[in-house]
Amino acid sequence: MSYSPYYSLPMISEELRISLSVKRDDLLPDFLGGNKVRKNRAIFENFGNKVDVIITNGGVESNHARVCALMAAQRGNKCHLVLHGTPEDSNFLNGNRFFIEASGAQVSYVAATEIAETIANIKSHYLNKGLGVEVVPGGGHSIEGAKAYMNAVNELPEEPDYIFLASGTGATHAGIQAGVVARGWRTKVVGISIARLNPRGAEAVEEVYYPLIQQEFGLTKEQCPAIEFVDDYVCGGYSKYSPVLIERIQKAICSTGLPLDPVYSGKAFVGMVDYLKKHQVQGGSRVVFWHTGGLLNLQSSKT
Amino acid sequence: MSYSPYYSLPMISEELRISLSVKRDDLLPDFLGGNKVRKNRAIFENFGNKVDVIITNGGVESNHARVCALMAAQRGNKCHLVLHGTPEDSNFLNGNRFFIEASGAQVSYVAATEIAETIANIKSHYLNKGLGVEVVPGGGHSIEGAKAYMNAVNELPEEPDYIFLASGTGATHAGIQAGVVARGWRTKVVGISIARLNPRGAEAVEEVYYPLIQQEFGLTKEQCPAIEFVDDYVCGGYSKYSPVLIERIQKAICSTGLPLDPVYSGKAFVGMVDYLKKHQVQGGSRVVFWHTGGLLNLQSSKT
Repeated sequence: MSYSPYYSLPMISEELRISLSVKRDDLLPDFLGGNKVRKNRAIFENFGNKVDVIITNGGVESNHARVCALMAAQRGNKCHLVLHGTPEDSNFLNGNRFFIEASGAQVSYVAATEIAETIANIKSHYLNKGLGVEVVPGGGHSIEGAKAYMNAVNELPEEPDYIFLASGTGATHAGIQAGVVARGWRTKVVGISIARLNPRGAEAVEEVYYPLIQQEFGLTKEQCPAIEFVDDYVCGGYSKYSPVLIERIQKAICSTGLPLDPVYSGKAFVGMVDYLKKHQVQGGSRVVFWHTGGLLNLQSSKT
Repeated sequence: MSYSPYYSLPMISEELRISLSVKRDDLLPDFLGGNKVRKNRAIFENFGNKVDVIITNGGVESNHARVCALMAAQRGNKCHLVLHGTPEDSNFLNGNRFFIEASGAQVSYVAATEIAETIANIKSHYLNKGLGVEVVPGGGHSIEGAKAYMNAVNELPEEPDYIFLASGTGATHAGIQAGVVARGWRTKVVGISIARLNPRGAEAVEEVYYPLIQQEFGLTKEQCPAIEFVDDYVCGGYSKYSPVLIERIQKAICSTGLPLDPVYSGKAFVGMVDYLKKHQVQGGSRVVFWHTGGLLNLQSSKT
């Protein structure tokens, strides 16, 4: 099973006077789901013939590191993670940490400034032993990762008027926008930032989006819809939240029954609701909320 | 969407020389999934015409309380939870606690010995106000809850030789065994205890199983397969674990990619693997691992 469920949410649709459907990538069945599963699956498929060691980086509670490490373990590859932070930043039973430990991955804890150098050193170390090494970009942030989302758009059964998603480092957002282009749809794709502010936020998405549409369709920047990146729900940065945001997320959980967390999907859902009201979106519009996971980040939220 | 995914796990099947499939009730899409979703859905459907307040009980990190509270909120009902323990027993960002708070349910924290009396008092309070009250048994432990699992067996596409599951208070186990009887299958249903020891463990399952098969099929105890309840993986009690158990669960996570936690599904999976070896189960046997949820309990595990 490699696709995710898609279904309509009639109760919330009535409240918002639109037709709301949800794409549940948080329910992708392997490796605890979420957008990092799609990305890493695509990235792993592109590996060369000889792979012994997979290196990647992330935070101590990184969803990407969890997926990459478990995927490597299932293939029988060694995984070496470069995580910024210290083991003391999390409890071993915290969601992602537990599964990272489960994978048996080797972990080097470093300061954020030491990531690149550490990866380079580790890579040399394994190459010198004659081993095949692949380095996966942090967060799966890459053209391949974005392509996984471009292809995922094919799982939607009909053209929506809007797609909303949590937009972080940008490859998911870029991929979905490219997928909409690929299908010749007029769908408006709106990324709700969970960390960055504009203009940097939109630029980060564009740094993947423009090369992708150039590579896939030979299109230039001017020939494609612009990236829409809303930065009103950042709440001070990655994993930060306010009491008002929590209250609104909790209200949304009750009306939808969805697992919305304060780090990713909760910010995106609240941003979507406001966007629909603020832009006076036409009644009956077909709207998709693309849930990209993040439940395991509940524990890593900060006031 | 009201059913859960079912698919085969080829990698682990090869390792165990059987044909292993997994039924993913942890991926039931509403209210964060798990067996409590099926049970409460069935229980809520049987409510009388006039319901204003729903009362139930559980621990501070109860999966059942989370589902019951969110389901009530979505219906627009008030929910009053009687939880044994104190708010200090968990952090508000712990999985189930976060979603219980999201529901807006009123919570009375009591000692375990005060549950029954507190529920009776609360019920009287609301009845005296002229409100319609329904009391849901703790854990959804009831004939209706078990019937939900009896019906769920109809979602399996073919007759397996074995079904394994985490067996707790017993309604899930009783329901699956009754569902196997209903289909006229010879499938062996094996519950791996996550808390209780025999003989009490098996008896608790039987207290739901025998009345259910009597009510549904007019069958007596002697006419039905016995309950198989394995208590070798309790590890000292509910939510307790040992380093060896954790190591084995983590190994299973790597080979399957499944979210196995030390409280429920991890104990059950490890117990299944040993059972298959110990009983020299025939090569090629069709085995189903029924994953009944519990990821949010990671945080409430104890050494």
